[in-house]
Amino acid sequence: MTVASPSTSAAFRYKIADISLAEAGRHQLRLAENEMPGLMALRTEFGESKPLAGARIAGSLHMTVQTAVLIETLVALGAQVRWASCNIFSTQDDAAAAIAVGPTGTADAPAGVPVFAWKGETLVEYWWCTTQIFDWSDEAAAAGETWTGPNLILDDGGDATMLVHKGREFEQARAVPADSDSDSQEYGVILAALRVSLAASSDRWTGVAADLLGVTEETTTGVHRLYELAAGESLLFPAINVNDSVTKSKFDNKYGIRHSLPDGLNRATDVLIGGKVVFVAGYGDVGKGAAEALKGQGARVIVSEIDPINALQAAMDGFQVARLESVVEDVDIFVSGTGNFNVIRTEHMLRMKHLAIIANVGHFDNEIDMAALEVLAGAEKVQIKPQVDEWRLPSGRSILVLSEGRLMNLGNATGHPSFVMSNSFTNQVLAQIELYCYPEKYPVGVYVLPKYLDEKVARLHLNALGVELTVLSPEQADYLGIPVDGPYKVDHYRY
Amino acid sequence: MTVASPSTSAAFRYKIADISLAEAGRHQLRLAENEMPGLMALRTEFGESKPLAGARIAGSLHMTVQTAVLIETLVALGAQVRWASCNIFSTQDDAAAAIAVGPTGTADAPAGVPVFAWKGETLVEYWWCTTQIFDWSDEAAAAGETWTGPNLILDDGGDATMLVHKGREFEQARAVPADSDSDSQEYGVILAALRVSLAASSDRWTGVAADLLGVTEETTTGVHRLYELAAGESLLFPAINVNDSVTKSKFDNKYGIRHSLPDGLNRATDVLIGGKVVFVAGYGDVGKGAAEALKGQGARVIVSEIDPINALQAAMDGFQVARLESVVEDVDIFVSGTGNFNVIRTEHMLRMKHLAIIANVGHFDNEIDMAALEVLAGAEKVQIKPQVDEWRLPSGRSILVLSEGRLMNLGNATGHPSFVMSNSFTNQVLAQIELYCYPEKYPVGVYVLPKYLDEKVARLHLNALGVELTVLSPEQADYLGIPVDGPYKVDHYRY
Amino acid sequence: MTVASPSTSAAFRYKIADISLAEAGRHQLRLAENEMPGLMALRTEFGESKPLAGARIAGSLHMTVQTAVLIETLVALGAQVRWASCNIFSTQDDAAAAIAVGPTGTADAPAGVPVFAWKGETLVEYWWCTTQIFDWSDEAAAAGETWTGPNLILDDGGDATMLVHKGREFEQARAVPADSDSDSQEYGVILAALRVSLAASSDRWTGVAADLLGVTEETTTGVHRLYELAAGESLLFPAINVNDSVTKSKFDNKYGIRHSLPDGLNRATDVLIGGKVVFVAGYGDVGKGAAEALKGQGARVIVSEIDPINALQAAMDGFQVARLESVVEDVDIFVSGTGNFNVIRTEHMLRMKHLAIIANVGHFDNEIDMAALEVLAGAEKVQIKPQVDEWRLPSGRSILVLSEGRLMNLGNATGHPSFVMSNSFTNQVLAQIELYCYPEKYPVGVYVLPKYLDEKVARLHLNALGVELTVLSPEQADYLGIPVDGPYKVDHYRY
Amino acid sequence: MTVASPSTSAAFRYKIADISLAEAGRHQLRLAENEMPGLMALRTEFGESKPLAGARIAGSLHMTVQTAVLIETLVALGAQVRWASCNIFSTQDDAAAAIAVGPTGTADAPAGVPVFAWKGETLVEYWWCTTQIFDWSDEAAAAGETWTGPNLILDDGGDATMLVHKGREFEQARAVPADSDSDSQEYGVILAALRVSLAASSDRWTGVAADLLGVTEETTTGVHRLYELAAGESLLFPAINVNDSVTKSKFDNKYGIRHSLPDGLNRATDVLIGGKVVFVAGYGDVGKGAAEALKGQGARVIVSEIDPINALQAAMDGFQVARLESVVEDVDIFVSGTGNFNVIRTEHMLRMKHLAIIANVGHFDNEIDMAALEVLAGAEKVQIKPQVDEWRLPSGRSILVLSEGRLMNLGNATGHPSFVMSNSFTNQVLAQIELYCYPEKYPVGVYVLPKYLDEKVARLHLNALGVELTVLSPEQADYLGIPVDGPYKVDHYRY
Repeated sequence: MTVASPSTSAAFRYKIADISLAEAGRHQLRLAENEMPGLMALRTEFGESKPLAGARIAGSLHMTVQTAVLIETLVALGAQVRWASCNIFSTQDDAAAAIAVGPTGTADAPAGVPVFAWKGETLVEYWWCTTQIFDWSDEAAAAGETWTGPNLILDDGGDATMLVHKGREFEQARAVPADSDSDSQEYGVILAALRVSLAASSDRWTGVAADLLGVTEETTTGVHRLYELAAGESLLFPAINVNDSVTKSKFDNKYGIRHSLPDGLNRATDVLIGGKVVFVAGYGDVGKGAAEALKGQGARVIVSEIDPINALQAAMDGFQVARLESVVEDVDIFVSGTGNFNVIRTEHMLRMKHLAIIANVGHFDNEIDMAALEVLAGAEKVQIKPQVDEWRLPSGRSILVLSEGRLMNLGNATGHPSFVMSNSFTNQVLAQIELYCYPEKYPVGVYVLPKYLDEKVARLHLNALGVELTVLSPEQADYLGIPVDGPYKVDHYRY
Repeated sequence: MTVASPSTSAAFRYKIADISLAEAGRHQLRLAENEMPGLMALRTEFGESKPLAGARIAGSLHMTVQTAVLIETLVALGAQVRWASCNIFSTQDDAAAAIAVGPTGTADAPAGVPVFAWKGETLVEYWWCTTQIFDWSDEAAAAGETWTGPNLILDDGGDATMLVHKGREFEQARAVPADSDSDSQEYGVILAALRVSLAASSDRWTGVAADLLGVTEETTTGVHRLYELAAGESLLFPAINVNDSVTKSKFDNKYGIRHSLPDGLNRATDVLIGGKVVFVAGYGDVGKGAAEALKGQGARVIVSEIDPINALQAAMDGFQVARLESVVEDVDIFVSGTGNFNVIRTEHMLRMKHLAIIANVGHFDNEIDMAALEVLAGAEKVQIKPQVDEWRLPSGRSILVLSEGRLMNLGNATGHPSFVMSNSFTNQVLAQIELYCYPEKYPVGVYVLPKYLDEKVARLHLNALGVELTVLSPEQADYLGIPVDGPYKVDHYRY
Repeated sequence: MTVASPSTSAAFRYKIADISLAEAGRHQLRLAENEMPGLMALRTEFGESKPLAGARIAGSLHMTVQTAVLIETLVALGAQVRWASCNIFSTQDDAAAAIAVGPTGTADAPAGVPVFAWKGETLVEYWWCTTQIFDWSDEAAAAGETWTGPNLILDDGGDATMLVHKGREFEQARAVPADSDSDSQEYGVILAALRVSLAASSDRWTGVAADLLGVTEETTTGVHRLYELAAGESLLFPAINVNDSVTKSKFDNKYGIRHSLPDGLNRATDVLIGGKVVFVAGYGDVGKGAAEALKGQGARVIVSEIDPINALQAAMDGFQVARLESVVEDVDIFVSGTGNFNVIRTEHMLRMKHLAIIANVGHFDNEIDMAALEVLAGAEKVQIKPQVDEWRLPSGRSILVLSEGRLMNLGNATGHPSFVMSNSFTNQVLAQIELYCYPEKYPVGVYVLPKYLDEKVARLHLNALGVELTVLSPEQADYLGIPVDGPYKVDHYRY
Repeated sequence: MTVASPSTSAAFRYKIADISLAEAGRHQLRLAENEMPGLMALRTEFGESKPLAGARIAGSLHMTVQTAVLIETLVALGAQVRWASCNIFSTQDDAAAAIAVGPTGTADAPAGVPVFAWKGETLVEYWWCTTQIFDWSDEAAAAGETWTGPNLILDDGGDATMLVHKGREFEQARAVPADSDSDSQEYGVILAALRVSLAASSDRWTGVAADLLGVTEETTTGVHRLYELAAGESLLFPAINVNDSVTKSKFDNKYGIRHSLPDGLNRATDVLIGGKVVFVAGYGDVGKGAAEALKGQGARVIVSEIDPINALQAAMDGFQVARLESVVEDVDIFVSGTGNFNVIRTEHMLRMKHLAIIANVGHFDNEIDMAALEVLAGAEKVQIKPQVDEWRLPSGRSILVLSEGRLMNLGNATGHPSFVMSNSFTNQVLAQIELYCYPEKYPVGVYVLPKYLDEKVARLHLNALGVELTVLSPEQADYLGIPVDGPYKVDHYRY
């Protein structure tokens, strides 16, 4: 395995791009803390009682500035943490450096958190990083303990969780399957990594799985995998679905994309969005945020949907709803936010306008059929700048593909902004506390956070926006049949 | 009991304002049918099989043009129907006339449906009308049957359901309670009506309740009552919560209000909305629709909320969120859409600008504390035109109260437009079919419609809007783990 | 000539629909005064000095509630006034009654202004009414004066001005031309009226023209006619172009239509605007207001334009820009706001969807080719309700035409709201004062109001909206090279 | 004078940051050409006739990618060009490199245009660069000519024009004034440069001025200076006011800022705009674009204005209009777009929230009183990253100042996007052609381009946006009294 050689340190092992970026990163963290009132409030509320003392958290989540504030919040609440990114392009190298150095360390004497992440990892490097968050032998040695893995996973997209499940599955089967033609390139990398692991130990992942109190997962896709595991009775430990907290799915997915999609388009291409025809595949929370942002910039937005309810919403919100096939020649910018695969295919690309832009804000890079593009006869890739490729097509026209078809709001911009992430991450921290402090409430299965915690997350963010909340009188609460302090809505309420 | 004397007929008993309005009403019905593709599709799908043959439906729902299309759809599917409005101001008299006359009758020989509704009922008249939909003695006699009540209720707001429950409760107790000072005026009217009933029969409502297969209910408030009854184990028959179909709550509540709130304001006052400061109490679906409509007209909208999640949504949507007390002097138009009571009180009214407007689009008239206004010393009411009253206050300023504090989108305009209601009413018809045809699926309790029916309702409305739905390939459906034809989302998905 | 017989009075001659509506009209006026701060401020500023004492104003402008406040402002400033509407459908009969009765009169003893206007005039009646505002013989007799006409015209659309010009032209030619096949039906009515006049007097209009100090005109179309007359050296008296005051054209045309277009659509059809495809012909101020209103209601708006600059603006504002021919089959609602003629033609109508709606908010009814529709073989008109006609077409489909193709925001709603009209009418009053008090500043020609008066109109409306204006420091004013109190912009500034 | 030492070349003199960036810059140019259809159309139309052959253009305009396409268009039309930026931070170094290298040159053998510009010039360097565009001695020598200066200026902000005027003025006076305490720091730099010039030559600028056929100027501020010079009879040569072409002021100023303001905020701070309270000073075209952009991102926008007409527009568009003093504590982001000076002062800064952001999109850095901030006792500047400074204030709170108070859309982002600039720059090229080819049409004075050229600019940009323009029929053109091909509007039309 070849790994690029970013900075490491004698103090503890980590691997990042450049430790000297720590000061720049620390500036960013300081600004971000001002925008993450939920996390800062948790530090105030739980900084002394340290409910996460003893927690060993393996984190797999975009190593951005915002995640850095999350990590330091977990530490402030008593946890030990190891971290990797969950996307090869999403690391902000200055944030990673600041986390390695820590608030009290220096570049020469880092005193932060073991972090394994840099912008522009190869797939092999990516999965190597992911395995590092499960290797707690140094910490165990330092503590004189026998455990060697984490007791909690904090996941985004489910890669860390999947690694444990696959690792244990192959250990049970005593063999890692051979590569199959139908597998993705990435799955081949995973199998290779697990082959190495199985050769080295027959029960490493079995042991890791046994120690885990659970996982908190924050994406639609990761949650979908968890429900599938639970439905198939293969889930190995409890899981809290943070994605479906209202303050996550309706905030991160919608308002985060509303911010970071145009940001990424601008940084990548500087193309005027106003007046352009933009196609948004999917009108879930992500698509709603995307469509609103682009409309707010004066674009004409066309939406596609498979679900008649979401399609009707799009129409009622004033958008044309059409199949990609019907409008592909008229579109300047294609945005995919579906969670599906092969949404934008080479058959579409060949019909696109010259220099049409393709941007994925869904989940995996396979929303765009990059695999087919890469083997398309007569297609040639010219890098315009990092994460922006011109593909010259046999149609005689070019298209611009952002972040190689992966999440462009992370690859071409800096991901969702701090305030949005503060909502998501406050849910994450509360979920970690639930799993660690109240394991009896969570037998193996998938859970959402109780509504009063969801409301608490919102409440912690109101003051920063100058929101005055109206308070029910006891008579009104009685009339409505709800407590003055909430929760205020029935569980199936949709917001 | 004094009842105004609208038209009646020898053919069958009904009571409406003016049978001669039937032709004008029929014109409106014809136009509305073009805007109600869901209902018309049900007529096509079920017009021959007549799944509601034998159903006796007591309907309590605003007697508008749209409801008329619903009623004739129920009849086309085989049902017998009796109808009252669920609001004293919401009847459109031409629609009521058209329904009484029916598509084949004439004003001289009505051949429609027994309907008891006119615009501007007194409370006494209102509850008299409601009792009429439970009196099926004429129909029973004509059919040579022994039943004398309905076997289904189609309800909006729960008044019809409440009447049955209260009637049976007092029959069980063998007494109607005395009026209490703390009761509303309206509750006194109900008690009076039930006293008359109890004097005439000791088991009328007990019998009615026993015959009922269930109720389908379409408002937040009515549904709330049903869940309370169910929680208190007092619910007498199954209930389908139509309100929480996505195609109802997220369409009728939001897009309906978006249309009918400015419509009602305009018809009532002709006041320019642009540039005005508008206060919207509540940011649920109704509040969201209200705020969007007013923003779309150039108003500056201030929102109030008790729920921190909804408050955060309002802030993220760009609205100031404040308590009424903090801003009352700056506001030109007050809109209440909470479902709560005493939201706008006389203490607020006395601080309002001259000719500030108060509009209720929530549910009951007690969102505005009309009871206190009516007894406020020094306050004087001057009717500007029907449903628009100037209240001259001891502050030396006047305020304009629309529809006496009741639903102004019904009282000052014509309610939600046909297309929106087609969504809601298609849910109603499907729910009636479920209760009538599959009673075994619904033991006493409160249910929502299954998601595939919700998606069906949406699907029936896409074509009229020119929406092209994208179809999953089998590979994509497999990748997502969902059927090609849906349902597409997990139950807790929030849209 | 047959004229319907509305109310008249012994006190002075007038002709309206129903004098008994005066009290209802007075309620409306009182509310409107609260929404017309500019006019009320002029009453305060000039109520004592009465700068219009001696002015005899012939007004031809939609006889609405707002115009009533204008009329009473002119009277408060000392003027005598006679009034007709400038559209056969635009009179609000209660407002006309209130104006006839006056603030101090009663229905039995009217003490207001001679007004000749009712909703639903025939063309013959319309031009009869227009001639009445030029007959000041009663006033002259009462005053013991020899003049018999006005000294000022207050015009909207230019009909009154045109009548004077044509009347004088034919008197000079000593003959009224014969009807020509190419003339519109309406022009035939005008010729007939002038033939009667010429038979009675050879110099009536010549005398009227000689007495006139000028006209103030407030529409695009009327102003266009004035510039044509001036360019052809045919203009008989000075004209102030009120339309091109910023506080008129950018407010009335844009914000007025934004309000009254959806209002008219709702009152006429109750059709849900959300989700519909709407075609807006023209993207001038009227089209901009129309498009914004419909977008704000969730419609998908397609714009057409002939001017590449306006077309580019529409595209940059996010709208599809297309020719009518390209999209006619997809459109649910057609809105014409061009000032052009034959914009929507029968060739288009025959391709329209069933029950497509046609609404004119431009100027004349010939924006829609109503003349061709009325003689279209196989077309049949069915009145749904007043001002709403279903036309059953040989295509087998129907279309709905509002207000017979005339201005539907006046015919189907109540015109622009008071606040908008307060801006326009404050300009009108200031322009009347300019012409009457400073005739030396205005040789025959067409003028716009000086910018400081335009700014004054705006300034008078800020307080009502809670606007805090920032005040330049003397240093800042010096830096910018403008006075602290304005005017602030160069003449060619476009706002 | 100390000048940083960027790349230079033997082939011809230029000064930029890094010639090796040329290939990266060329990629950007290629993409930009696709977004600048107006300029590319001019290359097609005039590439053979070369109307600018013999023109020597001194350009002073932000040296961005878009300007590079402008420069190469001027060259394609036959002109010789020398270039400097008009802002110390606005140069994109890769674009400058590409321009120096030219389309056919290499980094080793540049074959482009002499350009003097790099990101981050000092004031001394800035004015040195500006003087370089007036030194055509190399070109004269190569051509065997006696002239040594340009015959045209292409200006943005008026610095180049001012330099010529001041230079000549001091030559006439035979002395450069001494520095005065009341002068800005920058004016001192200019005086110093002119002292050096006057010492070297007594008539350099007099000669430059004599050779100039004119200037085309594209900003509000620069145009304002020109009108002042003309009013004072000090203007030395004709000037075309490109700023007031509709396709400039209504496009660049409005739609450009709509794009580049949020872009700059995002790149500088990554702060979520949604939910924030933003203050926009000024509601001209720049302020309108700013407010729309921020509203489109879910911010709550408060506007300030000195002009009652613009203030009324802001209110009618739904914005709160308030003085800065009234709301400063509630605001998260301050945007200044006035053209005025000292709009945001230290008295305001001291009251701001912690980490409030200050962004200037007006013109000069003195919109923000940076001079006072820099000498504020107890204030400390901490650079977060280039062009983003945290100022720690004696209030105990910090504020973030972007681009040292200069134009942050240029300093923190990449300026207005190509499509917008294509409109502005197509006007520039047409204006240069007018001055050079038709000098007889332009005696000394300030002119706007004729409307048909303005319409032509728009027309050249429609196709790229898929706009279908409607074409008048001859009958319609006749009805309207305008040519079928335009111009379509009266000169005072405001769009």
